[in-house]
Amino acid sequence: MLDHEFMILLDAFRRLIRRNARTNTQKMIVKTHPADLAALFRSFTEVERETVFNLITDQTYKAQFLTELDRAILIEMLANLPPTNIAELFKEIALDDQADILEQLPEELGKKILSLMSRDDSEDLEELMTYNPDTAGGIMVPLPFKMYEEDTVQEAINALHEQQEAEMAFYIYVVDENEKLTGVISLRQLLMVAPETILRNVMITKLVSVYPETDQEEVARIISRYNFLALPVVDRENKLLGIVTVDDIIDVIREEATEDFLQMAGVGKDREILLKTPIQAVRMRFPWLFATFIGGLIISGIVVRFQYILDKFVILAAFMPIIAGMGGNVGSQSSTIVVRGLATGRVNVQQIFHVLFDQMKIGLILGVLYGVLLTLFSNILYHASENIVNIGAVIGFALCCELFIAASLGALVPMLLHRLNIDPAVATGPMVSTTLDITGILIYFSIATAILI
Amino acid sequence: MLDHEFMILLDAFRRLIRRNARTNTQKMIVKTHPADLAALFRSFTEVERETVFNLITDQTYKAQFLTELDRAILIEMLANLPPTNIAELFKEIALDDQADILEQLPEELGKKILSLMSRDDSEDLEELMTYNPDTAGGIMVPLPFKMYEEDTVQEAINALHEQQEAEMAFYIYVVDENEKLTGVISLRQLLMVAPETILRNVMITKLVSVYPETDQEEVARIISRYNFLALPVVDRENKLLGIVTVDDIIDVIREEATEDFLQMAGVGKDREILLKTPIQAVRMRFPWLFATFIGGLIISGIVVRFQYILDKFVILAAFMPIIAGMGGNVGSQSSTIVVRGLATGRVNVQQIFHVLFDQMKIGLILGVLYGVLLTLFSNILYHASENIVNIGAVIGFALCCELFIAASLGALVPMLLHRLNIDPAVATGPMVSTTLDITGILIYFSIATAILI
Repeated sequence: MLDHEFMILLDAFRRLIRRNARTNTQKMIVKTHPADLAALFRSFTEVERETVFNLITDQTYKAQFLTELDRAILIEMLANLPPTNIAELFKEIALDDQADILEQLPEELGKKILSLMSRDDSEDLEELMTYNPDTAGGIMVPLPFKMYEEDTVQEAINALHEQQEAEMAFYIYVVDENEKLTGVISLRQLLMVAPETILRNVMITKLVSVYPETDQEEVARIISRYNFLALPVVDRENKLLGIVTVDDIIDVIREEATEDFLQMAGVGKDREILLKTPIQAVRMRFPWLFATFIGGLIISGIVVRFQYILDKFVILAAFMPIIAGMGGNVGSQSSTIVVRGLATGRVNVQQIFHVLFDQMKIGLILGVLYGVLLTLFSNILYHASENIVNIGAVIGFALCCELFIAASLGALVPMLLHRLNIDPAVATGPMVSTTLDITGILIYFSIATAILI
Repeated sequence: MLDHEFMILLDAFRRLIRRNARTNTQKMIVKTHPADLAALFRSFTEVERETVFNLITDQTYKAQFLTELDRAILIEMLANLPPTNIAELFKEIALDDQADILEQLPEELGKKILSLMSRDDSEDLEELMTYNPDTAGGIMVPLPFKMYEEDTVQEAINALHEQQEAEMAFYIYVVDENEKLTGVISLRQLLMVAPETILRNVMITKLVSVYPETDQEEVARIISRYNFLALPVVDRENKLLGIVTVDDIIDVIREEATEDFLQMAGVGKDREILLKTPIQAVRMRFPWLFATFIGGLIISGIVVRFQYILDKFVILAAFMPIIAGMGGNVGSQSSTIVVRGLATGRVNVQQIFHVLFDQMKIGLILGVLYGVLLTLFSNILYHASENIVNIGAVIGFALCCELFIAASLGALVPMLLHRLNIDPAVATGPMVSTTLDITGILIYFSIATAILI
């Protein structure tokens, strides 16, 4: 749906709601894909959301729509629904999506819904909910369609007929009599061979699988590297637990990238930050700013400590901002390159020193180039030569040192965090910029003092 | 492949190369997935790359390996190969990958390769190369597997048998006698119905398609929103030109996110920046830093212009960095949220004013909070009260104004760029931070002058 199509649809819905045209709104809903309707809900007011939600009559549509909604809106919609209705809706929703939704709801409501489900269903669901949502177990479709080694191709095809529900069945996983995963066969291959063929004789036995506790980023990396459509999840005994499908992996890749973006800017990692109220958003942004605030106070202390040199060479104050600003930019260039490299697997543990060394070289080259430029410009603009020493050269030299440190530190910090098993995106942005602000001013005044006094 | 598996494999290869164990290296290559070998090449030296590359004997393996390589390494590898060998290898490579590779090569070499191919092949290839690489046409697999409306299910299955090559055939596209796309049927559905069924009677006719000039980001959004495995590409007459498959879309999502990361940090948009030499990297990073440099010179001019007030209230210099630093952080928070929101479709044209208004509110709240904090701290730390006016309060007020402007500008700039059809990621980072450095200092001294003098 393009921007303008979205606008047209939004306008159409709003007009119908305003006119209270219930039947036409319902017709409109049926014509709109559940995923598109979920996107429209982001722009709807609370009243509009409730009106449209109550007009969705088809349970299958409603169920699919719910799985597409943003969490914040989902909770808002379900909060107004009696638990019996939610339990009813859950019958139409895939087990992994049920678990996702349940994890968002208040615990009380969750328990009530579970108690309203059949015992088998609620047990399956509770088992699935024991997995961390960011792991293969948390995103897998449990109990996938499977066949036994001794089954024939025809039996597999017959079984597929009965499994209308099987999500994204394009591979058939084959297990032995102990339920251990031994092979896989694609639907396409199934079509290619004689119906009486035994699966064991045609299945591919060289297959990649993951454990339920494997991090979802790792799963995404495997699926995207080998161009898989699905990846089986097995336990330590190689028993098939579920499959992760490519459509879920697309969401993972999107979401992880968004989280990294937000974290690097120091605004938490909630993808739905745009749906928060300003007060909630302030709460998410305040902590990282506080680090910068403390950094700023430390800098003010440094400046006060060096006040005597500022009094003597007032021009120095004029170049404080360029030192800090350029240092911050070079640092964020280097840290962004490294953070993204680590996230996409382009930077490996083995390459750490190589990458760091390269960034140091780059910092040095940029430092020399801009150091010379600053020396030139400060002399041209302010004739910054006093006594026998050229102040411009002092400032230029300080910039050179700062850029070298900025590139080195910008590369080093995320690598250290990665080494300590902390997500390097978490704090790199504000941490690097605040550290560089402090070191920049410190270097600046130290060099000025050493040379000028 | 996990980090430690990667390390083990890398060590093993290196040991074999050092010992010049050709046969064992070849065995090792066969056991390694082409995608993994391509990843190893990032860590290899030039000599190691050439050694291993020359030991790949299987043409199909070599072809797949080439499509997985990073561009910079690919060009390095092909540069040493006679054009006849490349033309030979191309026979094993899918048409869309051939086009990708050819676009990377020097024009002379590309022409030579084309002249060595059969006329049919080179014509298909040249036609494909007319599409912009960042569009549906640029990433599609041309000439997909298709059937006619009047064909039966059995005929489709028979045709599939012969099409061993058909990439990722899980949907069968159905066209009418004029080659216009009219329906689609999945392999799974094909298995479910009687062999003599006419395709027209079972195919799904409600389908989504895109034009070859549709931007690849738009294609990615459609595939991820509707959970498709493939999307047909048609011309204006609805004739089927090709399909875009989900595995290519995963790459697109990854790459676009990486480009946005790099662009926001002002380091160009080349994903392979880590493979560049320091000199090349400096060339990519220099221009955006130059903007900051000019901004810094402008700031120095502002400071010089306000020097008389600095002379009078020296404490003001100590708080310049905190104003600029916090302004920069708040601005980058807001701009990151908006840039990412625009990229993922969470921010629509329609919501622009809503989002902007929210960010202004957030900026105001943060401004008041940190303004009060700074007033307090500056008074506690420096007893910053002179004459009748409290300098701390002046500084706090300036911070408040700066944070309000930072949040507003941080949100406004990417939205304006989006409106002007410029990728909002391009320049937001350095542009916003430099602008905020300038406005911050300007506001700071203006307020100080207005109140204190």
